[in-house]
Amino acid sequence: MGGGEVTKRGSGFVLLAIIPFPEDAAKETIAEIREEFPDLEFHYIFQKFEVKKNGPPGGHVDVPAALLKRVNVLITITWLPEKESDVPNIKFIQFISAGTNHVANHPIYTDTKIPLCSANGVHGPQIAEWVVMMDLIHNHNYIDLYKKQQKKEWKHNGELSSSDNVGRTVGILGYGSIGRQVARVAKAMGMKVLAYTASPRKTPESKRDDGFIVPGTGDAEGEFPSAWYSGLDKESLHEFLKLKLDLLVLAVPLTKQTTHFLSTPEFALLHASNPSGTYIANIARGAVIDQPALIAALEAKQIAGAALDVTDPEPLPADDPLWDAPNVLITPHVSGVTTTTADRCFQVVRENLRRVRDRRGLVNEVDRERGY
Amino acid sequence: MGGGEVTKRGSGFVLLAIIPFPEDAAKETIAEIREEFPDLEFHYIFQKFEVKKNGPPGGHVDVPAALLKRVNVLITITWLPEKESDVPNIKFIQFISAGTNHVANHPIYTDTKIPLCSANGVHGPQIAEWVVMMDLIHNHNYIDLYKKQQKKEWKHNGELSSSDNVGRTVGILGYGSIGRQVARVAKAMGMKVLAYTASPRKTPESKRDDGFIVPGTGDAEGEFPSAWYSGLDKESLHEFLKLKLDLLVLAVPLTKQTTHFLSTPEFALLHASNPSGTYIANIARGAVIDQPALIAALEAKQIAGAALDVTDPEPLPADDPLWDAPNVLITPHVSGVTTTTADRCFQVVRENLRRVRDRRGLVNEVDRERGY
Repeated sequence: MGGGEVTKRGSGFVLLAIIPFPEDAAKETIAEIREEFPDLEFHYIFQKFEVKKNGPPGGHVDVPAALLKRVNVLITITWLPEKESDVPNIKFIQFISAGTNHVANHPIYTDTKIPLCSANGVHGPQIAEWVVMMDLIHNHNYIDLYKKQQKKEWKHNGELSSSDNVGRTVGILGYGSIGRQVARVAKAMGMKVLAYTASPRKTPESKRDDGFIVPGTGDAEGEFPSAWYSGLDKESLHEFLKLKLDLLVLAVPLTKQTTHFLSTPEFALLHASNPSGTYIANIARGAVIDQPALIAALEAKQIAGAALDVTDPEPLPADDPLWDAPNVLITPHVSGVTTTTADRCFQVVRENLRRVRDRRGLVNEVDRERGY
Repeated sequence: MGGGEVTKRGSGFVLLAIIPFPEDAAKETIAEIREEFPDLEFHYIFQKFEVKKNGPPGGHVDVPAALLKRVNVLITITWLPEKESDVPNIKFIQFISAGTNHVANHPIYTDTKIPLCSANGVHGPQIAEWVVMMDLIHNHNYIDLYKKQQKKEWKHNGELSSSDNVGRTVGILGYGSIGRQVARVAKAMGMKVLAYTASPRKTPESKRDDGFIVPGTGDAEGEFPSAWYSGLDKESLHEFLKLKLDLLVLAVPLTKQTTHFLSTPEFALLHASNPSGTYIANIARGAVIDQPALIAALEAKQIAGAALDVTDPEPLPADDPLWDAPNVLITPHVSGVTTTTADRCFQVVRENLRRVRDRRGLVNEVDRERGY
């Protein structure tokens, strides 16, 4: 917790939101926050959001220095005060982005200990639903069915052989907020869930999700996987890929180790383990997959298909051979695009206001060393 | 239970399957049954399945009379012995169809008390997944995304405003095996579930699903709905439609009362209750919806859209105006088409063999009076 006086229970917070959403995008949760914290003072500045070629994204905003001096909680996506002394009463800065890499060179990040909190977790349900949707579209041959509708053709000749998910196995590479919600829904569909994490999760504590969780979703206690696997080395990964996976979900951060985590040997292993074909869903980053190797695996029918919300590069050029690979479904990095982002982010704000009030540790506080 | 001698525990069953599936379509469960009942005798006759213009479907088969005399369990879709004395040792007849209406005029149905068991419940997960898939395709604007892929277009302009199911409400008209599995998955996605049944379910016993349930799926105890509604009259239905439903799933049998259960007044009520639009999924029968009224409701944007696996009539003619209605997704009665039917049906057979062995009541026994 930063310095500053003790806040009385349920009173006195000064909030400043500088965000690229219309104020009413989060009106539901903001209203609930006002009700829960009646003396709260809320200021809102709309930031026109611009993606710039050079330099960090985000448009210029004018913020009154006097207001800034009184602010306890800053809610932002890119804008930060120049120096710590501009915000002497700050308790935490709440980002409405899942990560904070985009401000990692800012003096507030590098030179202060002001708690920075991410919005990690708010996109879990939305992106998990994308994964479930794509898995179902594949399993139920929906693209064929849609093409029949386009032709106003009502018939099938039993060739639409599909089957439900009961008894199938999903392997989830990266068991964070997205992976955990995939697990919850997969389990409800009758699937067996296998989790894969960077470091081992052998104790109940280590299996827990300590970040923000959209209520009613996810896997707070790590109860859904029937087995846990781990490791950033290829040997560990290979053990996981030998488990006859029907669906493999990629939800790992892109790091040096996870770059081209899936390549020619990995597709060969998947095929050897499950000759009828693993289906792959990638909502991580395009470069987690060696894309030419993926195309070769699709063409050789080593895997059943792939649903990709991320590609390498993005945007994917119109002449990229990936478009013509068989059994591939591509969406333009939209799995997390939702009308609820702003509102969900204020749910994180509310949780952190409660924790400051109750003198508990913040949720989603960024570890500056680790970078997330 | 029909007449016949007492079967010793785990021994002596004579099974005869006369079905339109290759024998190995159910080999997994048949192998498990053989293991559980080591002295079981299994006979298999492939029935070439023909849909006939007049008369019941199903092709001719020759069944040795001597074998028939010894049979304890007949597994069939259409074929039946001519009279009860042909099968003096029969314990039950297991149909591999969800209903038995197609044999309701057969003397075995009308003139005997041989227990007839349906395969009700085996299609729950498959059809529930179709509902979930269609709901997600609608919510996530997948058709637009697919069209972009067809054009090799990687971009979106934020116009793809979608949101996940968290906090949304699903109303399930007909809380049987399909509706219950929809409820399980919907709950996992963070939805509120409201159940609607023909008769009131006020006690824990009445909320239970006593039929066959694919293990790990469904809602055996009726635990997922936050509220239950009932009635075959329009007044009761209207109370349900006023509950601001985001998704309305039609899973009722087609009866005199449910014919055109949804018509002009019902669409108006849905709209008044939820102006942003209820999405409708119909996996019941086409005539549960008054189709011209549906087209009008879609055109007037009274509802958000409709996913229809059933239409009125079927097949839907190419010049039917339903094809051109906005926000409609149509599939040709395939939601239950799956490669697992045969295997799942033998799971029901196994359950009933256990129950005969243990002298418990059969699962899915048809009530001849009620008709299912």
